Amino acid sequence: MDAFECIRTLRSVRQFAAEPIPDEVLQRILQTGRWSGSAKNMQPWHMIVVRDRETLTRLAACGTFAGHLRGAVLGIAIVIEPTATRAEFDAGRMAQNMQLAAWADGVGSCIAAMYEEEKAKSILGVPQEMAMNYVISFGYPVAATPGQVKGKPRLRALAGTGRKKMEEIVHWDKW
Amino acid sequence: MDAFECIRTLRSVRQFAAEPIPDEVLQRILQTGRWSGSAKNMQPWHMIVVRDRETLTRLAACGTFAGHLRGAVLGIAIVIEPTATRAEFDAGRMAQNMQLAAWADGVGSCIAAMYEEEKAKSILGVPQEMAMNYVISFGYPVAATPGQVKGKPRLRALAGTGRKKMEEIVHWDKW
Repeated sequence: MDAFECIRTLRSVRQFAAEPIPDEVLQRILQTGRWSGSAKNMQPWHMIVVRDRETLTRLAACGTFAGHLRGAVLGIAIVIEPTATRAEFDAGRMAQNMQLAAWADGVGSCIAAMYEEEKAKSILGVPQEMAMNYVISFGYPVAATPGQVKGKPRLRALAGTGRKKMEEIVHWDKW
Repeated sequence: MDAFECIRTLRSVRQFAAEPIPDEVLQRILQTGRWSGSAKNMQPWHMIVVRDRETLTRLAACGTFAGHLRGAVLGIAIVIEPTATRAEFDAGRMAQNMQLAAWADGVGSCIAAMYEEEKAKSILGVPQEMAMNYVISFGYPVAATPGQVKGKPRLRALAGTGRKKMEEIVHWDKW
C-alpha cells in the first residue's frame, strides 16, 4: 500500500475476524516497532505479544475502553522504562509505526489504555519499575463492520471521530 | 512509496538542501498530523509552521541537539494541551505520521527536543498553559550526506544508531 494512503486510511478497528495473523505479518509489525526512532536512540521499550485468549480477556478488563482486546487475534503490550527521557512520546511513535505496518497488510488495530496499570502489569509479569499504559489489539477487520472502518465506532464516548479543521490547529510562524 | 518501505527506510536527516518544500507537500504533511489518532479523539494539539530563518535559528538554541533547525527549510512545532489524557503519547503518534508523510515525498526530518521549553514557547508566543517540547526540522536531504541517511549522524552522542535485537525487546505471552 502507498505510504500516504496507508496513513490517510488508518482507522481504529475494534471488531476482528477469527482469521489468524500470519507469522511473517506479525514479524513485520514487530520489526517496525523495533525500528522506531527514540530520544538519543535509547529504545526505552519492550513489546509483549499476547495470544492467549484468557490473558487477552483479563487485559480487556483493565481499561474502560479496552473491551476490544477480548476479540483481538493478538495484543501487543508496550512496556517502557518510565525514567527514560521522552519515553511516552517515543512509545507513541512506535505505536504508530506498528499500526501503520499492520494496516499496510490489511490488519486492523486499536489502542487500549490500561487504566488499571498495576493490575495489567501483574497479569503479564511486568517488573515493578516498568510502565505499561497501552496494549494494542490486532486482527483482520470483520467484513460486516464498514461503519467502524469508516470511522464510526459504536462507543458513544468516541462518537465524534471527525477531526478539527486545519485552521483550528495550524498556525503560521507564530501562535 | 510503499508504506512498509517508508517505515523501514525512515532516518533522521539533519542536513538539508536549500530547495523549498512545495506547498502541496507541506499540506500533505500537516494533514497527516491532523488525521492522527488520539485518546478519545481529543486531538490535544496545535502545529506551528516556522519558516522565518531568524526564528529557526533562535529555536535551534533551545536544545542541546536542536542545531539542525538552523538549516531546516521549515520547522513544525508541536504544541499540546498537557492536561489532556495521554497527550505526550498522542503527540508521538502525530510526529511519526508527519515524518513518514514527508519521507514518502522525499523530505527528510529530525525531531528537536526543546530543553529550554519556556524560552522556545516565548519565541513563538505560545500560551503559558500549553506545552511545547518538540520542533521537527523538515527539508530535502543534502545529497552529499549519505552517511546520515544510512543512519550514521555525526553527533557522537547519537553514534549508536543501531537497534536492539528482536529477542532483547520482544516477549511472548509473558514478560
